[in-house]
Amino acid sequence: MSRTASPEPASFVDRHVGTSEGDRAKMLAALGYGSLDELIDAALPAGIRRRLETILPPAVSEEEVLAELRALAAANRPGEAMIGLGYYGTVTPPVIRRNVLEDPSWYTAYTPYQPEISQGRLEALLNFQTMVADLVGLPLANASLLDEATAVVEAVGVIRRAGRHAGNRLLVDADVFPQTVAVLRTRCEAIGVEVELFDPDAGLPAPAAGGDDVFGVVLQYPGASGAVRDLAALTQEAKNRGAMVAVAADLLALTLLKPPGEWGADVAVGSTQRFGVPLGFGGPHAGYIAVREGLERHLPGRLVGVSVDAAGRPAYRLALQTREQHIRRDRATSNICTAQVLLAVIASMYAVYHGPEGLTAIAQRVHQRAREVAAGLAGAGIATVGEVFFDTVTARVPGRAAEVVARAAADPAELHLRLVDADTVGVSCGETTTEAHVAAVLRAFGVDAGEDGPVVDGAADPLAPLGRWTAFLTHPVFHRHRSETAMLRYLRRLSDRDYALDRGMIPLGSCTMKLNATAEMEPISFPGFAGVHPFAPPATATGYARLIGELETWLAELTGYARVSLQPNAGSQGELTGLLAIRAYHRANGDADRDVCLIPASAHGTNAASAVAAGLRVVVIASRDDGTIDLDDLRAKCAEHAPRLAAIMVTYPSTHGVYEAGIGELCRIVHDHGGQVYVDGANLNALVGLAEPGHFGGDVSHLNLHKTFCIPHGGGGPGVGPVAVAEHLAPYLPTHPLHPDPSRRAGPVGPVAAAPHGSAGILPISWAYLRLMGPEGLALATKAAVLAANYLATRLGAYFPVLYSGNNGLVAHECILDLRPLTKETGVTVEDVAKRLIDYGFHAPTMSFPVAGTLMVEPTESESLEELDRFCDAMIAIRAEIDAVAAGRWSAEDSPLRHAPHVAADLVGPWERGYDRATGVYPAGVTADKYWPPVGRIDQARGDRHLVCSCPPPDAFAG
Amino acid sequence: MSRTASPEPASFVDRHVGTSEGDRAKMLAALGYGSLDELIDAALPAGIRRRLETILPPAVSEEEVLAELRALAAANRPGEAMIGLGYYGTVTPPVIRRNVLEDPSWYTAYTPYQPEISQGRLEALLNFQTMVADLVGLPLANASLLDEATAVVEAVGVIRRAGRHAGNRLLVDADVFPQTVAVLRTRCEAIGVEVELFDPDAGLPAPAAGGDDVFGVVLQYPGASGAVRDLAALTQEAKNRGAMVAVAADLLALTLLKPPGEWGADVAVGSTQRFGVPLGFGGPHAGYIAVREGLERHLPGRLVGVSVDAAGRPAYRLALQTREQHIRRDRATSNICTAQVLLAVIASMYAVYHGPEGLTAIAQRVHQRAREVAAGLAGAGIATVGEVFFDTVTARVPGRAAEVVARAAADPAELHLRLVDADTVGVSCGETTTEAHVAAVLRAFGVDAGEDGPVVDGAADPLAPLGRWTAFLTHPVFHRHRSETAMLRYLRRLSDRDYALDRGMIPLGSCTMKLNATAEMEPISFPGFAGVHPFAPPATATGYARLIGELETWLAELTGYARVSLQPNAGSQGELTGLLAIRAYHRANGDADRDVCLIPASAHGTNAASAVAAGLRVVVIASRDDGTIDLDDLRAKCAEHAPRLAAIMVTYPSTHGVYEAGIGELCRIVHDHGGQVYVDGANLNALVGLAEPGHFGGDVSHLNLHKTFCIPHGGGGPGVGPVAVAEHLAPYLPTHPLHPDPSRRAGPVGPVAAAPHGSAGILPISWAYLRLMGPEGLALATKAAVLAANYLATRLGAYFPVLYSGNNGLVAHECILDLRPLTKETGVTVEDVAKRLIDYGFHAPTMSFPVAGTLMVEPTESESLEELDRFCDAMIAIRAEIDAVAAGRWSAEDSPLRHAPHVAADLVGPWERGYDRATGVYPAGVTADKYWPPVGRIDQARGDRHLVCSCPPPDAFAG
Repeated sequence: MSRTASPEPASFVDRHVGTSEGDRAKMLAALGYGSLDELIDAALPAGIRRRLETILPPAVSEEEVLAELRALAAANRPGEAMIGLGYYGTVTPPVIRRNVLEDPSWYTAYTPYQPEISQGRLEALLNFQTMVADLVGLPLANASLLDEATAVVEAVGVIRRAGRHAGNRLLVDADVFPQTVAVLRTRCEAIGVEVELFDPDAGLPAPAAGGDDVFGVVLQYPGASGAVRDLAALTQEAKNRGAMVAVAADLLALTLLKPPGEWGADVAVGSTQRFGVPLGFGGPHAGYIAVREGLERHLPGRLVGVSVDAAGRPAYRLALQTREQHIRRDRATSNICTAQVLLAVIASMYAVYHGPEGLTAIAQRVHQRAREVAAGLAGAGIATVGEVFFDTVTARVPGRAAEVVARAAADPAELHLRLVDADTVGVSCGETTTEAHVAAVLRAFGVDAGEDGPVVDGAADPLAPLGRWTAFLTHPVFHRHRSETAMLRYLRRLSDRDYALDRGMIPLGSCTMKLNATAEMEPISFPGFAGVHPFAPPATATGYARLIGELETWLAELTGYARVSLQPNAGSQGELTGLLAIRAYHRANGDADRDVCLIPASAHGTNAASAVAAGLRVVVIASRDDGTIDLDDLRAKCAEHAPRLAAIMVTYPSTHGVYEAGIGELCRIVHDHGGQVYVDGANLNALVGLAEPGHFGGDVSHLNLHKTFCIPHGGGGPGVGPVAVAEHLAPYLPTHPLHPDPSRRAGPVGPVAAAPHGSAGILPISWAYLRLMGPEGLALATKAAVLAANYLATRLGAYFPVLYSGNNGLVAHECILDLRPLTKETGVTVEDVAKRLIDYGFHAPTMSFPVAGTLMVEPTESESLEELDRFCDAMIAIRAEIDAVAAGRWSAEDSPLRHAPHVAADLVGPWERGYDRATGVYPAGVTADKYWPPVGRIDQARGDRHLVCSCPPPDAFAG
Repeated sequence: MSRTASPEPASFVDRHVGTSEGDRAKMLAALGYGSLDELIDAALPAGIRRRLETILPPAVSEEEVLAELRALAAANRPGEAMIGLGYYGTVTPPVIRRNVLEDPSWYTAYTPYQPEISQGRLEALLNFQTMVADLVGLPLANASLLDEATAVVEAVGVIRRAGRHAGNRLLVDADVFPQTVAVLRTRCEAIGVEVELFDPDAGLPAPAAGGDDVFGVVLQYPGASGAVRDLAALTQEAKNRGAMVAVAADLLALTLLKPPGEWGADVAVGSTQRFGVPLGFGGPHAGYIAVREGLERHLPGRLVGVSVDAAGRPAYRLALQTREQHIRRDRATSNICTAQVLLAVIASMYAVYHGPEGLTAIAQRVHQRAREVAAGLAGAGIATVGEVFFDTVTARVPGRAAEVVARAAADPAELHLRLVDADTVGVSCGETTTEAHVAAVLRAFGVDAGEDGPVVDGAADPLAPLGRWTAFLTHPVFHRHRSETAMLRYLRRLSDRDYALDRGMIPLGSCTMKLNATAEMEPISFPGFAGVHPFAPPATATGYARLIGELETWLAELTGYARVSLQPNAGSQGELTGLLAIRAYHRANGDADRDVCLIPASAHGTNAASAVAAGLRVVVIASRDDGTIDLDDLRAKCAEHAPRLAAIMVTYPSTHGVYEAGIGELCRIVHDHGGQVYVDGANLNALVGLAEPGHFGGDVSHLNLHKTFCIPHGGGGPGVGPVAVAEHLAPYLPTHPLHPDPSRRAGPVGPVAAAPHGSAGILPISWAYLRLMGPEGLALATKAAVLAANYLATRLGAYFPVLYSGNNGLVAHECILDLRPLTKETGVTVEDVAKRLIDYGFHAPTMSFPVAGTLMVEPTESESLEELDRFCDAMIAIRAEIDAVAAGRWSAEDSPLRHAPHVAADLVGPWERGYDRATGVYPAGVTADKYWPPVGRIDQARGDRHLVCSCPPPDAFAG
């Protein structure tokens, strides 16, 4: 036989890591190293590398991991979730599930910072904004927040900043969801806002004696109890007293009810979960926020607006980015960065597919089911709370509540009701609630409604006086895509406009666009994971419990910390959570004054914004010329602020993509001054399996499961930002009043997210990744990522100087290419290069972060040598184009660089440029399979000057 | 409140039918009818419409149907299928499952008759051909057949046609799979070929006394028993005797074994199932056939070849179509039409992903598992059959076989072994077989192999002397896409080249490209459906049994027949099966001479080819000028052939898209002459819920589940062609020796497919469609389809004459647009119009069938009014372009029509045409979201002159 050895079939590790062993040998040779370990030893500072035994289980195959996750999903019993509190049964239309949630062209896309190649998802997000604004009756909505509870926090932030009210008293409707109140308390405590509950039926509490210190009022509509109240008078009173009003509102209810914007609300927030987004044990779901005119510039998060491209074509882009943390740092409107784009897309498509009539019909059916429940209970003499309700009926069953809830759970229909207290049961209806469910609910209460079910009085709906009269979703997009065929084509048309990982490399420094493997993604659609309510009885979610427990353990192991919380549902929230733990720790030690947070000049803007949200003051540490943190400045600042020093936030490897040698020393200095060390885990991709922040000096880190641990970026979210802490900080991890584990329901730090385990529905992705890779695979991935970055740095360094490097001239997992000298010489900007890369078939690297005028490139471990070389070849060809500008062959203004990206439509008109068409659209290496951007260079400034943030009329696109 | 009525949320019917009620009202008004029923009453001939009660269950929602199918899937217990016989455990790589099998851009594509917009799947099929040819060691393979058993039949056809041998004796290796032998017997009996089994170890049987009447030999490699024999001498002997040799070979085994092409085989056939295609209770899987040089023109089925486009770019297209039934009719090489393209794509991508080393490693692991089984048995003194094997071990356990098989099934590992006979058990290993499975196998035999498992002698593999020495899959495509990221991008790149239903309308007359809804598609991936072996113990496939039983019942109900068989796995096979039933019926009645099959001149070519395959003679019935069947000619032919009249095959509505009024009369005439009426169900889309062939005179029909009942076309298959018969023909439905129901294992007609229920794995699609639509929904779909066709006929009739119509000038579900007068006047051909439609963003209608020089348009019920109008607008604009040619503004040769389709790359060079670039690529109504074909007009003739049917070297594409 011709074979001598017996090779093993490819493992998942071979599929995840893009370079083969042979490729890596070639790359190492190009760098002058004999082995991967030799390279890593040369790059990593002495003393931080660990080679320990690990408790992580060995790698399994894709088939095995799918079987294991099927078993875990089967251990969950979703039943019919009628617990309410912001989470309801909903049907994800299969066409949307398959062609958005399960389609790599949507889920592997990046945040639309390069709008020319993101027009599809930007249109979907504009639809989302239009949908929210229409439904709540306010003119401007953003493109999603993390969940309803944090959205309420953001609304309070808007009110506080915009109102400039001297008071710090926030009045909160006692019928607000309990988890929202708890998150509000956590967050308000940190920034010194006083939260006071009040009974909305009793009116607003009186002003304080010394003047009205109420700056804001938060209302829930409908209330957690189900009550629908006319809140107009109360809202008017609040405004008369100089406060602003934020309303947490249910979008489905607003198809039937007069919206908050029509009765005076300044801000509306909420969740879009029930618009087709799976429950997922709590998330991810897109939160929303909308504001009245005049509050635009106070909005947190992403906002999509309309501008034009170089040829005057309408084009979408992110608007008013100057509000955001990546630009304004500690003066940003919020620390949020990743939002919930993929889920916002799903919710918006649900509205597109159903349209206003369809949504209204769903709302009416939900309402009808609730009326049937109420009528059945009334017929049996069971009292309910309040006469006016939409989907939720709260019943009084003195002493019997637990029994009723247990009977419902034991019913073959497996209903989960809300146990409000010993005497009270809540029943919430959703799109999935059927007449059979209603009958089962009534059975649980001991009511037999008979064969025909309860009789609802068709004429007298108490909701009617509060009914909505204004039209919504009138834009054609909400009327054109009613058949599955039409919807499928709309989804394809939009995704075709975009460039995602399924087309080619997205070499984004600091963002780690690695493979999101199918075997990791498939399980999130399993009904046993997708259908579980976050407050489901623990016995019905044991699969989740085991998965979450194992994932926490494995992540603690990989980071060298004692404990992990998966609650934070974005990196920004992880940062905040870690800082809240530090703050609480200092307070518990009697160090309430420790409020200074040191942040290096090179840090990500989110760090500073998070510090502010945690009630800390930011003090900046200088960088040295080589990009490293100036330890002398650190010593000085530590000395200066010693008694008030709370923490330092440091990213490792640094945001410059370098393993700084001084990390151990840095930690010692801060510890010596009583501070805690927060190691930002954004770059953990360069550490996993090699070094552990918890061992080289960190007290706390947050991780980005959507970077290092393969949760896809989804066009700008979902993110998951678990926080990992050393033993002494473990008591300060977030709790949650509705946590399945009673021991984690209260503690020094309350919840930071609406659900106990945040975006639990996507945790199977990271769990699967760790199971598939095993400890050796994870370490190999890290080494391969470092190799790829150094290979690029070496190949491209001759054309674009690599700005910073560490030991032995090596970078870590990314490198910064310095364009500034070329820009100075030729006028060709970093933006020109970024856009020109589109013509070559690439997504641009990170532009002007962390250093203006540079590109930061992170190839990740998942790219093949062929793709790495294709990228290098393109960059080298671009350098030649810049040289042509330098040589005077083209002016910068009339070069293919400045006119990039080139649009197919531009080819058909007259051509009066200094280069020919082929040079424009088919530069070296580009084939017939070329990606065509739908629009050319977008005028960013114009879009902010003329702010349009809802769907423009169709004739705007006629040209 | 603003609402007066309480609308229901959209149902699935609303999603499947593309026109809304309002749209339909507008369309009816344009046609001058007041209601859908008025239109239908005007179109349908009196007397055929039926309004009966139905047993079909009422419609349910997508959520409900998914829950029902989940329950049915859960009722199947796939276990580990070790039964072998051509079906083996395999792992579909998740990246291929999600991005091919579950991706509408692949599964909704049509057969690549328009090669310019099918380059992606054509490349995938060329990879398939290259893969097969390389592995079997023969120069030319086709792009898939239906299954291994029918592939053997096709191989015999090649041998018979090419050999021109006077004999009719076929020698068949007794170690050929039993289902293959049974299908061979069914098919050979019909065409008068004598099948004789022989023991390959004993050599070929002697020639007959009067001269050697052996024209062919069929061998299995490895044999069903697992035996791997050196068949070279036997093959040589057969050839010396003037016979040709066909070998049914296992492709995975051929990575280790010397391939048939190297030891003299003329033809190799088999299945590619174990290359990543789910078992699916028998299918669909792609069969293959490959031939030695000189046999090209005898190949059945589709063959992909390389040619060039108008600009000289290499381009793929279907080669040698003149062999096929749609052109050569009763002189075609085969009746097959639909193949198994989607499955061939999956198998080819499996080879692309694993490459030669990966496939070899999988084969070695499979072989190793089998050796472990053999060693374990040998260690316990259990005898096995034959010393040399690849994956299958056959064990002798006198009197104990049933007990061993039962113990394996009862094991927690749920192993299914092959019960060969009372004394013999077969054990086949697959990619999914683990060491734990081996241990469980041995346990079932009562063997304890100990902790370390059985010990295999590493040195002495008896396979070695038969080992393969030649390289395979050396083309770069089998080496470039090893990481999941690279694979994902390759799949996207290919699908991006193609135009499928996810981009726009595919208005193919006679092919019914309706919606393939996601909720219908999702269940085929459920492990409970995907993982079941076709010969699994019936008790482990009760979910399938129920689904199949219900589907048969529902289809019988809808067609008005007594019984249905789902075994035929393509429309062509359904035709053949129906004709075999008629033939057997006549024989049973003593009418063995009845062998004339009347076929109208307008019939689909498959009809004639099927009649020949069923051993019948074709007599053509003339058409009248109005396109209808000439009943006078029919009477004359019936009279002429009365004693030999077997049947008429008639399509209803006719292939001209017309409800012919004379259908009742036609049936009476044929019946009066002792013939049977075969109503071809190709156009059942125009009858479902309105009329039933079994009631207006048909004795038998086949249906096309991939047309009327929503199984996607998948780029040219899978198809499913159930046959439905009246009571008197029920005894002549196909049987199967391994049918789960013992009463259906034998009968007058044997099996026509390798698996008892054919392509069972995709039957959930049609089951779901019927459940989702309910009887009213199905009728509405038919009416909406007829309305859409008449709407198009009316809007377009003024620009292109509608060739034929029926009652009241109405067409049925499609219409023929006559281009011939315009062609005569201007030189603009039907092909020009078809290709120009690509520039407008459409797939062309059916070209030159059933009438040369025409386009047949079938809009289906799933298109929206907006899309129908967009198509009409494009056709009207094209008419204006033809008028410009007529007016002399352009010559036909230099018109945008002749240069169509226009390729983006053509825009960048010099432009010396009589029209400008914008006219070429952005004609009226085309937007920036335009689809760009990857190549221009393909030179069809050149490709057949220079036949290249395997992957060309990469530098061919350099230009």
